[in-house]
Amino acid sequence: MRIKIITSERIKNKFAGEAIKEYTKRLTRYCKVKLSATNNIAKEIKGNTYLIKISSNGKMLTSEELAEKISSLGVRGNSHITFVYDNEHHIEDADFNLKISDMDIASDLLLIILYEQIYRAYRIINNEPYHK
Amino acid sequence: MRIKIITSERIKNKFAGEAIKEYTKRLTRYCKVKLSATNNIAKEIKGNTYLIKISSNGKMLTSEELAEKISSLGVRGNSHITFVYDNEHHIEDADFNLKISDMDIASDLLLIILYEQIYRAYRIINNEPYHK
Repeated sequence: MRIKIITSERIKNKFAGEAIKEYTKRLTRYCKVKLSATNNIAKEIKGNTYLIKISSNGKMLTSEELAEKISSLGVRGNSHITFVYDNEHHIEDADFNLKISDMDIASDLLLIILYEQIYRAYRIINNEPYHK
Repeated sequence: MRIKIITSERIKNKFAGEAIKEYTKRLTRYCKVKLSATNNIAKEIKGNTYLIKISSNGKMLTSEELAEKISSLGVRGNSHITFVYDNEHHIEDADFNLKISDMDIASDLLLIILYEQIYRAYRIINNEPYHK
């Protein structure tokens, strides 16, 4: 599985860069993750990808439900998932709109949560204990 | 206002320590925040505090609602708030049970989110733009 995370926000805090590096390292066992911080989100989205948009109007999932979604996409032959954090509303259509919390959370932190949830999803899919 | 954050989990990732340091620094303008990682949570809870427990069975609030809660506690003369992340369920009763997300989120990350939400609350209370 290839996972691309696209954000319209640059990373602002040093700790966020380090957290993303840490989760990227842990995820190498399970999938390829690529982060793209860009002003041109549409250009970064490949046509054949399953597109999940992080949105305050989206649907909340449990970690198990996100794991199930990632797993079933693989089974159905979708080998590419794109998560978009698009604060400036360039992207209208997505295959799924995902809400993380009712709270407004800083973009740096949302990115870390997303990485952590993808990592957690693969631990769930593989029946592995969660390594904190 | 004095805010105490008590957690039954030690901080596991370096980035989390750095994030907490960063938000603690930003919060010095608004309140005193003290973090306590302990196995004896009950001992750390002062009797006169307003107790908010982070709980997956709790109620979700928006950032504005949390700001309103913190603000109204101050007006009512509560000068002390305690947030508890009690993964081992030592604490039965709290004044409020707060759910952050339907997702299971690593304790390190929950702590960072909590700090960020307290900082965000004070920016909202003081009508200040949010500094990312």
